[in-house]
Amino acid sequence: MTHRSRLAGFIIDCKDAPIEESARFWSAALGFTIDDPNEGGEGKYAVLGGTPSDLHIEVQRVDHDSRVHLDIETDDIEAEVARLLALGAREVSRPHDARWVVMQAPTGQRFCVVRMKQPGKGATPNVWRAGD
Amino acid sequence: MTHRSRLAGFIIDCKDAPIEESARFWSAALGFTIDDPNEGGEGKYAVLGGTPSDLHIEVQRVDHDSRVHLDIETDDIEAEVARLLALGAREVSRPHDARWVVMQAPTGQRFCVVRMKQPGKGATPNVWRAGD
Repeated sequence: MTHRSRLAGFIIDCKDAPIEESARFWSAALGFTIDDPNEGGEGKYAVLGGTPSDLHIEVQRVDHDSRVHLDIETDDIEAEVARLLALGAREVSRPHDARWVVMQAPTGQRFCVVRMKQPGKGATPNVWRAGD
Repeated sequence: MTHRSRLAGFIIDCKDAPIEESARFWSAALGFTIDDPNEGGEGKYAVLGGTPSDLHIEVQRVDHDSRVHLDIETDDIEAEVARLLALGAREVSRPHDARWVVMQAPTGQRFCVVRMKQPGKGATPNVWRAGD
């Protein structure tokens, strides 16, 4: 059995700030476009565009302290979580009907494992065999 | 007058952990190689390789809490700092003989402005005119 994963991109978590203002700063700072100023219509997510290798770079409004977190995307969330657990990460939570898994690296950073949406775009995914 | 900048990549700051262990986890998790396990020979920096669009992704041993921070690289640090100040960021410090500038976004994240090393590699830099 094999599965695939890769760095999806990173999420810029912004505490309590209006998503439009946060997206405006980060798109201007990094020189990216705002592809979707309000993804999902909840005032929580803004997607940046024109990113290197089609990395998914998103600004999010959050309740916790501001930070940057990485997303790993995969075509098999359970296999990828198992692989990362074996590397020393731990599972933190499965929010939003378990659509993604929040994990914590042994070095302390939170990151998310999410479903791969466009395997044909961006960098070639890594292929892992069970036991890798 | 114009200057150039772009997202250089991101730095995975790891509190108090041996750099070899931190680099091993993150290279395996993200599927990147370890290009330099101990850049500078201080046990502080490990450079990952095979990254999308040649983004500079580095693992660092730090004293502060673990986090991920973004680097913006530029061919004119003063002009880029001025541009980011005008966008609402603030300057935090100029460590290591002012070789780079630590800034804080209005949304709270720390990031660094560093010198662009290889403008011909990776994504096309953004070109800014004074007053942009």
